[in-house]
Amino acid sequence: MSGALEVCETVAAFRAACDALRVEDRKLGFVPTMGALHRGHLALVAEARRRAPNVAVSIFVNPTQFGPNEDFARYPRPLERDLELCREAGVRLVFTPSPAEMYPAGERTRVHVSDLTDVLEGPFRPGHFDGVASVVTKLFAASGPVVAVFGRKDYQQLAVVRRMTADLLLPVEVVGFPTVRDPDGLALSSRNVYLSSDERARALAVPRGLARAVALHRGGERHAGALRRAVLELVEPAATRIDYVAVADADDLTPVPDAERVGERALLALAIFVGKTRLIDNVVFSEDNPPVTP
Amino acid sequence: MSGALEVCETVAAFRAACDALRVEDRKLGFVPTMGALHRGHLALVAEARRRAPNVAVSIFVNPTQFGPNEDFARYPRPLERDLELCREAGVRLVFTPSPAEMYPAGERTRVHVSDLTDVLEGPFRPGHFDGVASVVTKLFAASGPVVAVFGRKDYQQLAVVRRMTADLLLPVEVVGFPTVRDPDGLALSSRNVYLSSDERARALAVPRGLARAVALHRGGERHAGALRRAVLELVEPAATRIDYVAVADADDLTPVPDAERVGERALLALAIFVGKTRLIDNVVFSEDNPPVTP
Repeated sequence: MSGALEVCETVAAFRAACDALRVEDRKLGFVPTMGALHRGHLALVAEARRRAPNVAVSIFVNPTQFGPNEDFARYPRPLERDLELCREAGVRLVFTPSPAEMYPAGERTRVHVSDLTDVLEGPFRPGHFDGVASVVTKLFAASGPVVAVFGRKDYQQLAVVRRMTADLLLPVEVVGFPTVRDPDGLALSSRNVYLSSDERARALAVPRGLARAVALHRGGERHAGALRRAVLELVEPAATRIDYVAVADADDLTPVPDAERVGERALLALAIFVGKTRLIDNVVFSEDNPPVTP
Repeated sequence: MSGALEVCETVAAFRAACDALRVEDRKLGFVPTMGALHRGHLALVAEARRRAPNVAVSIFVNPTQFGPNEDFARYPRPLERDLELCREAGVRLVFTPSPAEMYPAGERTRVHVSDLTDVLEGPFRPGHFDGVASVVTKLFAASGPVVAVFGRKDYQQLAVVRRMTADLLLPVEVVGFPTVRDPDGLALSSRNVYLSSDERARALAVPRGLARAVALHRGGERHAGALRRAVLELVEPAATRIDYVAVADADDLTPVPDAERVGERALLALAIFVGKTRLIDNVVFSEDNPPVTP
């Protein structure tokens, strides 16, 4: 079966190929990506394959989710390698549209999720989540999957996509999959290729900080400020700039002030720059399911 | 077959019933309405039945498309009569959700179409088209029709829904159907019940004004200002208030200034109040297909 990979560049061809796969079995799994695939993406594909017999992947560096000063132009695009990885992973269909195919002249529609998008990444990436919600709506509509799998590293993105999918009544099950990490703890990211070896070493402050917060929480610490400061102490010396280190409700992303105790499910999320590279990571504290050390 | 009408009040039941109808034949037609059905709606149903073997109708007075000073509370809701009309018209399925079913607590997503929504109705009904685009996206997602039919009386709504459907890659053919009129020319509207008999007589200035513009256009008049003024002269004495009488491109709704000539396809649209009742109507001038006198 691996090897039978179809690549579509137009919406019409992608839609027809998805329809054909659905006729075969009616159940399509979908993994939207921006390419530059790593083991994290492949874990999403494997999860999708566990949940649906046929899996489609989109590879699209979506311009509307990048700000004017972000890395749209230099974002890595190793297409041939990505296709080979998809083939090996048993993906049936890859969609590789151009920006003009997804945003033709005259296109005027955006999907906006409020509140959830005003916190954490929101203030630092204005318009980002409108771009995400819009492109995911389009990709879901074109492919018609029963299930779509997203990584939990982009925790807020996952929350926004879940909200949007439920609100727009899209008939898609949105699944979040745990962050895949290198053995030293660094979360896999297509942007890690930007890091020099010195920067990569400094970036380890992120998983170490999160691990420290997890250990504190396990030890009974419930004050948001204490958990947050535990991370900050390790991350501050390593970061070129800190966008945020924040504690929030893990479901609706409402911020938890430093002076308050975290609830049953709390998120600790951060975004920092190491050199010119922006890194994000997070951990969820849960009373029911103790988090794994990053 | 008429008589076999299923009524669903929840999204889950509606989705399941639509899925069942699609299994029967795979092709579902859909007519979204706010109820208070008249012959205009029934013409949309008949057109949907010409295009798909099974037709579903939604009856939902959508709160998000009403402004705070509009007629949401007093909008007519003659449900039993509507269901009987649907039954007689051969509708298979009617969806009658509550506002809480369509907008549950925590719901946060809106669909916005830019530019097209800034003109004509836009300035007078802020947020209206976000409400329309959002609810239609939701209804399309829940029902999964191959075709949906909208009346051309709400011309801008039809344009917004077309744009949104194309932009979000929704697999639905959006069909516009000609405005149905009473013998005296007044466009059918659920809001006509608000009119006193005196107001109804004054309201005839609208179709008379549009008919006059059509006659002028047939006679060779191409200046937007002349066409617009021909309507205004008849409508001004009858109107309690005029929101707009405007000429625009019939496809992208770009306004055509009075001093310019109309293009190949031009829209003349208006919104006026007669008493407390807001009426809208329009006509499209086309070089290829001469418009019928309203």
